[in-house]
Amino acid sequence: MKTIETIGEIRSLLGKAPRSVGLVPTMGFLHKGHMTLVREAREQNKTVVVSLFVNPSQFEPHEDYDSYPRDYHSDLQKLKTAGVDLVFAPAVEELYPQGFDTSLDVGHIGTLLEGKYRPNHFNGVGVVVCKLLSIIRPEKTYFGQKDAQQCAVVQKLNSDLNLGTEIVIIPTVREKDGLAISSRNIYLSHKERKDATLLYKSLKLASEMWRQSIFDVIIIKKQMTSLVEKSSLINIEYISVSNPVTLKELNLLSRGALVSIAARVGKARLIDNITLGD
Amino acid sequence: MKTIETIGEIRSLLGKAPRSVGLVPTMGFLHKGHMTLVREAREQNKTVVVSLFVNPSQFEPHEDYDSYPRDYHSDLQKLKTAGVDLVFAPAVEELYPQGFDTSLDVGHIGTLLEGKYRPNHFNGVGVVVCKLLSIIRPEKTYFGQKDAQQCAVVQKLNSDLNLGTEIVIIPTVREKDGLAISSRNIYLSHKERKDATLLYKSLKLASEMWRQSIFDVIIIKKQMTSLVEKSSLINIEYISVSNPVTLKELNLLSRGALVSIAARVGKARLIDNITLGD
Repeated sequence: MKTIETIGEIRSLLGKAPRSVGLVPTMGFLHKGHMTLVREAREQNKTVVVSLFVNPSQFEPHEDYDSYPRDYHSDLQKLKTAGVDLVFAPAVEELYPQGFDTSLDVGHIGTLLEGKYRPNHFNGVGVVVCKLLSIIRPEKTYFGQKDAQQCAVVQKLNSDLNLGTEIVIIPTVREKDGLAISSRNIYLSHKERKDATLLYKSLKLASEMWRQSIFDVIIIKKQMTSLVEKSSLINIEYISVSNPVTLKELNLLSRGALVSIAARVGKARLIDNITLGD
Repeated sequence: MKTIETIGEIRSLLGKAPRSVGLVPTMGFLHKGHMTLVREAREQNKTVVVSLFVNPSQFEPHEDYDSYPRDYHSDLQKLKTAGVDLVFAPAVEELYPQGFDTSLDVGHIGTLLEGKYRPNHFNGVGVVVCKLLSIIRPEKTYFGQKDAQQCAVVQKLNSDLNLGTEIVIIPTVREKDGLAISSRNIYLSHKERKDATLLYKSLKLASEMWRQSIFDVIIIKKQMTSLVEKSSLINIEYISVSNPVTLKELNLLSRGALVSIAARVGKARLIDNITLGD
């Protein structure tokens, strides 16, 4: 496994690398979720590239860019064990040199759900994804379903700008008690960690209600809210039932609908989702 | 020579094409200026792609998108004679399908000079260049120096988004009397066409003054203005002396400075420029 910090060097190595190339873009601090993406990429491609880059442009000014957890050496160890070929770990100045002045607007889809709480987030994701795809030019690029809106945005961007990769979405990896694995779970206290399981429980409840032919989204959101509000430590930001591609809100539950929730739990902001019928 | 209308087909053909690939992006209605780019691309690459696409997103609402001159069959004839391998001539819906919703902001450089009169122009250029470079993935991409700001914007975009091509700038091709060749010259009446030569004459005057060690930009702009205003048919929009990369305005003429002019001549809006010392 080679670790590369410059665009020039990774381009040069990829010029000679066996195709197909699979890219797993990450912000590092790798957990079981990331490693599931890496494993899938390893199975499907001759060359696997993992990027480690905490992308400043996708954090809002008040967010946790500075304190976002990093563990570079442990990440490299895990990636080596997983049989990754190339790790791309550029400095911020390599991707955003002085004078960098281009921005991207991913359009309406980036203003929904998370976009209401993180208005610049997806445009920042868009820029870094556009850059990484242009540098690496992978046949396949792997994202986790946990960030459902990110998946939808990246699919749209890949299509709108003809970036020419295939976006592969990998199901959410969960702790035994159902909590979706996330780098930000480390922000949770013991009690918060316990209560955070209510998020997934509320999603399962929606799924259960749908199976019992309760389709009215208003009723379902009310039930989900009641369940989550059993904990005084959780503040719901939104519960949404939407089309998984356009993220347009639905009035009735149906197979394939995306049910998602975002909440503040102590210092952490957590998101989770399920697709009905999966 | 093959003419291709879909992204899928050109990608598939380029997958097997000998490298390097040179791209000449055009809006068609090809003139001697374009053909100089094509000839250069032919000399420098194993595969030459020319795109013919009148890009709606780079026209302002009041501009001449609908009436922009088109001559598809004559274009194909010229390109065939020039030994082009692939012509990419997509329909508008191929590059901007229903639901297309991504925009790009090329930053400060796009707001200067032309940007003051055409506020969305360079962002539209940015989107289509980003798309064409992602689809074709050329080693080299050819632009004409006549559109000096477009050259600067595209260089910046290529660098900021790591689009991975080399931008090759080809000197402006002129009529015998000095008028820069442009598709929009056909809008000129006989008298306007004659007077339009004053634009290049004013640029030559600036160059001459610089050679005579007159460096003060205020004085030079005044002299250029006097010369151009000898024709009542020409309305100057701007005269600028700037750094050719950043387009930052200069107070003193120096070697390498970009002297540019934009003016309305009848129905036409014409631009021209020279680089001092070239």
